[in-house]
Amino acid sequence: MARKASLAKKSLATVCVVFAIYAFFNIFNFPSATSKLDPNLLLDFSDRTSISSSSSYRKNLQIVTSVKIYLYDLPHRFTYGVIRYHSLARGGRPADDVTALNYPGHQHMAEWHLFKDLTRSDSDRSESPVTRVSDPDEADLFYVPFFSSLSLIVNPIRSEPGVEPVYSDEETQVALAEWLEAQEYWKRNNGRDHVIVASDPNALYKVIDRVKNSVLLVSDFGRLKKDQGSLVKDVILPYSHRVNSYKDDVGVGNRGTLLFFMGARYRKEGGKIRNLLFQLLENEEDVVVKHGAQSRESRRAASHGMHISKFCLNPAGDTPSACRLFDSIVSLCVPVIISDDIELPFEDVIDYRKIAIFVESTVALKPGYLVSMLRAISDERILEYQKELKEVKHYFEYGSSTVNEIWRQVAQKLPLIKLMINRDKRLVKTNLNEPDCSCLCSNQTGILASA
Amino acid sequence: MARKASLAKKSLATVCVVFAIYAFFNIFNFPSATSKLDPNLLLDFSDRTSISSSSSYRKNLQIVTSVKIYLYDLPHRFTYGVIRYHSLARGGRPADDVTALNYPGHQHMAEWHLFKDLTRSDSDRSESPVTRVSDPDEADLFYVPFFSSLSLIVNPIRSEPGVEPVYSDEETQVALAEWLEAQEYWKRNNGRDHVIVASDPNALYKVIDRVKNSVLLVSDFGRLKKDQGSLVKDVILPYSHRVNSYKDDVGVGNRGTLLFFMGARYRKEGGKIRNLLFQLLENEEDVVVKHGAQSRESRRAASHGMHISKFCLNPAGDTPSACRLFDSIVSLCVPVIISDDIELPFEDVIDYRKIAIFVESTVALKPGYLVSMLRAISDERILEYQKELKEVKHYFEYGSSTVNEIWRQVAQKLPLIKLMINRDKRLVKTNLNEPDCSCLCSNQTGILASA
Repeated sequence: MARKASLAKKSLATVCVVFAIYAFFNIFNFPSATSKLDPNLLLDFSDRTSISSSSSYRKNLQIVTSVKIYLYDLPHRFTYGVIRYHSLARGGRPADDVTALNYPGHQHMAEWHLFKDLTRSDSDRSESPVTRVSDPDEADLFYVPFFSSLSLIVNPIRSEPGVEPVYSDEETQVALAEWLEAQEYWKRNNGRDHVIVASDPNALYKVIDRVKNSVLLVSDFGRLKKDQGSLVKDVILPYSHRVNSYKDDVGVGNRGTLLFFMGARYRKEGGKIRNLLFQLLENEEDVVVKHGAQSRESRRAASHGMHISKFCLNPAGDTPSACRLFDSIVSLCVPVIISDDIELPFEDVIDYRKIAIFVESTVALKPGYLVSMLRAISDERILEYQKELKEVKHYFEYGSSTVNEIWRQVAQKLPLIKLMINRDKRLVKTNLNEPDCSCLCSNQTGILASA
Repeated sequence: MARKASLAKKSLATVCVVFAIYAFFNIFNFPSATSKLDPNLLLDFSDRTSISSSSSYRKNLQIVTSVKIYLYDLPHRFTYGVIRYHSLARGGRPADDVTALNYPGHQHMAEWHLFKDLTRSDSDRSESPVTRVSDPDEADLFYVPFFSSLSLIVNPIRSEPGVEPVYSDEETQVALAEWLEAQEYWKRNNGRDHVIVASDPNALYKVIDRVKNSVLLVSDFGRLKKDQGSLVKDVILPYSHRVNSYKDDVGVGNRGTLLFFMGARYRKEGGKIRNLLFQLLENEEDVVVKHGAQSRESRRAASHGMHISKFCLNPAGDTPSACRLFDSIVSLCVPVIISDDIELPFEDVIDYRKIAIFVESTVALKPGYLVSMLRAISDERILEYQKELKEVKHYFEYGSSTVNEIWRQVAQKLPLIKLMINRDKRLVKTNLNEPDCSCLCSNQTGILASA
């Protein structure tokens, strides 16, 4: 018994010593302890030994692990002032403190969520891929928190005849461009290290050529020319979903409708396909296609429809993207995407073929094709789609990880931004016949799910 | 005295307790301990709680912090076999064990350093931005270790008349392309996630269109078309410097020559400027311009010349880049770059205007311009250039951090590679009149140092 106690004592002592050594190692040899987790971080640490501490290159190395962003203190006119006018145009009462105003719900709310995120305290932002800095000299990137999408819809769609609109989006856009062009940090790199949200496809249309060097956060490139927006320079944002998220588990038992669509029947450009699809589908018994406008009532009906349907139709709108895709995803209603030029958010981490069915426009218009193709999909396959939808759903809930994921996408642009800034400054000015561009091209070898 | 001892005891006890708490925190709350250093890492950890552990999206999130690379076990023909033929063509004796052969010194040795780096043990590679994996299914990227630049120079420049060359670079290139195209992981994404070195501007010329989807590690884009290479898709490598690194401190006292150049006087294309510069400069008393070919003797002379000169001339060669720039940098001889289309390695972290002087070709050819411009630069300014050169020198010493820096540049391409792979697969095939490309364009607003 005494021997056993002695052994236990010895074991305890050994454990304590091992623990102490391990603790010592963890604290005083921190970089090595992290090496399995982040080689870039280690690279940074190791390089400190060979570069003097005042080196600007060490600062540059750190960008890999921590991107520093400066939030412009924009005049209220471009932020809370827009909310104020939106409220006034809808009969709201003038507010004493504009910063107490609530941003109104609509489908392009990224501008609000990103702004609010950057104004949170540092301790609340410790998980963010971007660190806010108060000194612009320390910043890698500059965030311009103009509410460009809200600005577009401030005035009510139907205004009283003869009554002047309360607000001019165009004037505000021009004023913003002028304000930016007067800023030292904008002039320094012609805005290339600036980040601006333009999630409504028509946002900033009046001044887009004056801000096109910046990283634009957009819904698609439907209204942008090749030199104004690209996957390489910009970031695709998800719309703010407008229907309720589906809370129950995956399953097809309570989804009696094969295919559901509710939205505007008549649209311009790529959206012309909608009326043709209505004609093809409106007489199919297990298909629900309904014309509907944006209203609380329609949203409730759409929410219900998407929750009891296996597939949700996502045709192009006036531009290739539409809010409905994100409504479908959070409803676990498998999206059927008929929009040949659509761009999709976070596509570096999400393989959309796992959560959606892509159908080429010309194929979708063949009579009988869509419904027979969808009816042939087994319940097991639908469950697989639903399981994947459930896994990625959190990417599209602005309340949770969406904002961090957007910042991660922005942060990933930094090396190329820094390269182009350095390169632009030492480049010989030439009169090229075509612009000096670096491109990444699709090799058009994809296999279409519907083919 | 007793009180003092007691106080010391108490202080020691407090320090011990604080240490124990800190140790405990460091070991059992590891992610939080790193939060100040790497937000992306934390994002990854925090997301684990909301995603099931089997999720493939979790794996994707990790790419930010650790890029996994698979080293192809290429047939020896493409690696050590090339060294063997290079040796045989120079009268070497056949080797029993080809893997014991030494890679010969020349200016495009990145292919050797990267290959050797990936074959080091995991513990020796703990600081690398890329982690080697043995299972290709786990890999984000695939490294193809063909010695493409050595392959180009295997046969001696002057072969005996009537004697067949011992080796065919073209046949080896074609055999490599065939081998790759038979690989499952190549076929999966048409090589888009593959990494291939082609640092000699003529390397792989015969099969470049078959490997152009890959990340090419190149010296410049002089021999590549717009759809074959770009700053967005590819990585610019430094040449292996061929003169000795300057070991002494910064200073102008022992640098009596104003401007130094030694190299081929006659070159094709952009390099035609060399002969014109010779004519302008060869009679200036404090300028040394000498014709010289690649040899041990010339390298020794060039090394000496660069170490005793303030400025080193870097005109374009047959293509915009040349080894001499990197010789100048490690010699702390301020580079004077006259090559309008040059691309520079690691330009996201190095602002080359701090270490070099860029002169537009047409300006450099104005009689008297170059020497009077250089003579007007103060010793203080030259010292500033030298200090910056000394800080970045390690980027160009293949023995130290260059390899890790190349891997970091490669790793930064991954998000865009993943995006394009996912996007290509769900894209509707179309017959576009022009290729579907995403571009980043220079805004040509740079201010030229010489202007």
